[in-house]
Amino acid sequence: RGAWAGLAAAVAALALGLAVSVWRRRPRPVREVLFFPSQPVCTEALLAEAVGPGAVTRPCRCPLPRGDCSLSRLLRRLLSACRSLELCLFTFSSPQLARAVQLLHRRGVRVRVVTDAQSMEMRGSQIGLLRHAGIQVRHDQESGYMHHKFAIVDGRMLLTGSLNWTTQAIQNNRENVMVVEDHEYVKAFLDEFERIWEEYNPRNYIFFP
Amino acid sequence: RGAWAGLAAAVAALALGLAVSVWRRRPRPVREVLFFPSQPVCTEALLAEAVGPGAVTRPCRCPLPRGDCSLSRLLRRLLSACRSLELCLFTFSSPQLARAVQLLHRRGVRVRVVTDAQSMEMRGSQIGLLRHAGIQVRHDQESGYMHHKFAIVDGRMLLTGSLNWTTQAIQNNRENVMVVEDHEYVKAFLDEFERIWEEYNPRNYIFFP
Repeated sequence: RGAWAGLAAAVAALALGLAVSVWRRRPRPVREVLFFPSQPVCTEALLAEAVGPGAVTRPCRCPLPRGDCSLSRLLRRLLSACRSLELCLFTFSSPQLARAVQLLHRRGVRVRVVTDAQSMEMRGSQIGLLRHAGIQVRHDQESGYMHHKFAIVDGRMLLTGSLNWTTQAIQNNRENVMVVEDHEYVKAFLDEFERIWEEYNPRNYIFFP
Repeated sequence: RGAWAGLAAAVAALALGLAVSVWRRRPRPVREVLFFPSQPVCTEALLAEAVGPGAVTRPCRCPLPRGDCSLSRLLRRLLSACRSLELCLFTFSSPQLARAVQLLHRRGVRVRVVTDAQSMEMRGSQIGLLRHAGIQVRHDQESGYMHHKFAIVDGRMLLTGSLNWTTQAIQNNRENVMVVEDHEYVKAFLDEFERIWEEYNPRNYIFFP
């Protein structure tokens, strides 16, 4: 009986040790908040690096600093996409963010964009360029605004907050972007994206005579 | 030796059982996303209920439905405040949300509001009413917008997203508000609030001749 009890104790200790070890090795989900305004920085090196290992890159000669900031962090999160990128954006006029999105599209990432019709027609909007590059874009036909500002990377990471994707907002406004890897939040936003994507299907557009 | 091993096994099993039981009983932090537009609803009963047990309440005779919706959920989360409420809002013109905030102030909750100077001057803004009620308000003096849209309840729960606190946004726009009880996110936003609160201290205002 003593031997059995000893064996039981050893097994219990082993199981406990194993559970703790598995739990500690699990990669911790990202929980980050990016606050803006972000100082103007040169993002050429960051974008060139994301093109791929075979890309020819020339160092940029502009006088802007290269440091780490909220914009460069946001770009890095976006550029980590391997398979899919859903964008649901009220306004999209930042050339730096648009270049990152086009780069992902060229790399074979499935990019889908939902935006607001009124905002899309404003000067500086990058939506036309994205469409020209072959990226799928859908927009509302509603009187209210499509006011979301979120992105979903690989169905795994949510980027959401108050920030419209404009240079004005990035460099001048008080803004926030949360980086979230929690499955429940990601799923809620992905479901919202799919709902809107289907509602804004061009099949449903109404054209007035 | 057998007896000792048996005892060790019993203690290990007991500790494991206790740990599992404590872990399971811990209240699960709220993880919720409210999506808008929200249908127009009557929030009179909800607000009256929040005044307190001794309050005289008359049933509202308006024809609006009383159902559960994103606005009523947002109101309930706000009205759960017992000690403190930090508001960092680009635009605040929703009369329903302003009544909830005044109610909390009267109930003794410490309310602090940070807002955007340009937006504050717009027609329908509730900021003047809040100030009149004795609530502390601070605003920017910057060319960029104070574009955040977040609230922190009792230093414990964060409400943040794309939603400006206007009836237009609540009833007509596609919007989101995340309800977050994660300590790391709450702390990041609370720190941002305190930074802005200090920067917008009236001591630092510049008055031009």
